[in-house]
Amino acid sequence: MAQNIYDQADFFEGYSRLDRSVQGLDGAPEWPALRAMLPKVDGLSIVDLGCGFGWFCRWAREHGAKEVLGLDLSEKMLARARAAGSDRNINYERADLDELSLPKGRFDLAYSSPYTMSAMSHGCSRLFIRLSSPAGSSTFSTEHPIFMAPTNPGWSVDVAGRKTWPVDRYLVEGPRTTDWLAPGVVKHHRTIGTTLNHLIQAGFTIGHVGEFRPTDAQIAARPELAEELERPMFLLVQARR
Amino acid sequence: MAQNIYDQADFFEGYSRLDRSVQGLDGAPEWPALRAMLPKVDGLSIVDLGCGFGWFCRWAREHGAKEVLGLDLSEKMLARARAAGSDRNINYERADLDELSLPKGRFDLAYSSPYTMSAMSHGCSRLFIRLSSPAGSSTFSTEHPIFMAPTNPGWSVDVAGRKTWPVDRYLVEGPRTTDWLAPGVVKHHRTIGTTLNHLIQAGFTIGHVGEFRPTDAQIAARPELAEELERPMFLLVQARR
Repeated sequence: MAQNIYDQADFFEGYSRLDRSVQGLDGAPEWPALRAMLPKVDGLSIVDLGCGFGWFCRWAREHGAKEVLGLDLSEKMLARARAAGSDRNINYERADLDELSLPKGRFDLAYSSPYTMSAMSHGCSRLFIRLSSPAGSSTFSTEHPIFMAPTNPGWSVDVAGRKTWPVDRYLVEGPRTTDWLAPGVVKHHRTIGTTLNHLIQAGFTIGHVGEFRPTDAQIAARPELAEELERPMFLLVQARR
Repeated sequence: MAQNIYDQADFFEGYSRLDRSVQGLDGAPEWPALRAMLPKVDGLSIVDLGCGFGWFCRWAREHGAKEVLGLDLSEKMLARARAAGSDRNINYERADLDELSLPKGRFDLAYSSPYTMSAMSHGCSRLFIRLSSPAGSSTFSTEHPIFMAPTNPGWSVDVAGRKTWPVDRYLVEGPRTTDWLAPGVVKHHRTIGTTLNHLIQAGFTIGHVGEFRPTDAQIAARPELAEELERPMFLLVQARR
C-alpha cells in the first residue's frame, strides 16, 4: 500500500496552500508544457491517476472529454474534489494505485500529474500500460529523477557563489524519505531510463520527453522560478500505443 | 567547425593514456551496456561518428559487418587507427562532423561513442537521421547531460560527508568550456529531452534509454567506479526507423 500522507493534517494543510492547489492548473508552472503534450481530449475516456482536488478532471470535461475517472488515495482530497461541483461524467473514486484493479484497456488517455508517480513503489507505468486501450495514450508529469534521487535534497552554494543542486545515489533506485510539507514523506526513485524503458517494453512509443523549463514570462511573473533553470524539477512524458 | 582538441599534443597524450584508448572497448566501462543495445552487426553497413583509434570499427568487422566507415576530425587518431591494421572493408576518413556531407540513407547503423556528440554544436542526431537508411538504426553513447551541464563540473562533499555531483544550468543549453586533459575543452550541452526529441521528430522510434550504472563486478575490479552510482555519467540510446 502506498503511503497516504495527504490525509495527514500537517501535510494536507501545507499542500492545500500550494499555488497548484489554490489556483489549480494555472498555478502549476509545468502545466503549459504538459498541456501542449496532451492529445485533443474531446470525446475521450480519461483516467486521472492521483486526481487530487480534481482540477484536471474538470478541465478535461470543460474541453469535451466524454468521461473522466479521478482516482486518489486521499479521502480529504476526494471530498474537496467532489465539493467543487457535480458532473455525472466525472467520477471520483478512492483507490490505492499500488493495488488497483480496473478493467484492462478501459481508457483512451491515462493522465497523471506530479507527486503521484513518486509516491508509488512500482511507478505509474504499469497502470498506464494496463489502463490504456490499444489505441490509447498516456501523458504524465512526475518529479524529475534528478530532483528525487539525492539522499538529502536541497540547494547548495558553491565556492563561486553559484546555486547548485547536489546529486547523489542517482543510479541506486528505491525509496527516499524526505521532509516536504511534513516529515517522513516516502518517495520511490527510478531513473529516467527505467521510466521510459518500462513504457517501451510494454509496447508504448515515446512521443515526447519534456523537462520543465520556466519561460521568461513565468520568471518575470514569479522570480523564484529562475532557480528551475539550474536543475530539472519535472519530467513530462507523452507516449502512445 | 568543431573544436579539434584531439590533435593538440597535451590532450592527445592524456586521451591516449585512458583505459578506453589503451585497452579499447573493454577499457570503456559503459561498453557492455552499449553492446547489449546494438543490433546484430553481421552484414551491416556501419558509420562510426568519431571513430578515434578505430576500436569499434575493428570490433564490428570482427563480428561480421559488411563495411565500416570511421570518421574523425583528428589526424593523429586516424593515423593510429590506420596503423592498427588494414582491412579493405574499413575506411577511415577525416571529417568535421559539424559540416559533413555524405549520401543520405547510406548506412544500416549509425554509431557513436562518448565525447563525439558533446563536441558537436548541433549534436549527432542530425547525422544519425541523415545517414541512416529507411530501415536503419542508431546506437550511441554520450556524456550524460547531467554530467555535462554544470558551469564548474566536479565532485563535492556535503555536510554529512557524502560525495555529490552539483548540477547547475541544466536547462540552459549551449557551450560549456571545461578543463579535461587540457584546458579550454569546449562541449555543447543539450538536455535529455532535446536529445531524444530530435530523434523522435525525425521519425526515429526510441528503443532503449540507458544510463551507465557500474555492475558489482566492475566495481570490484575497479573500485573507483563506485562513484558512478552517484551521478549519471553516460547516456546510451538505441533508436530505429
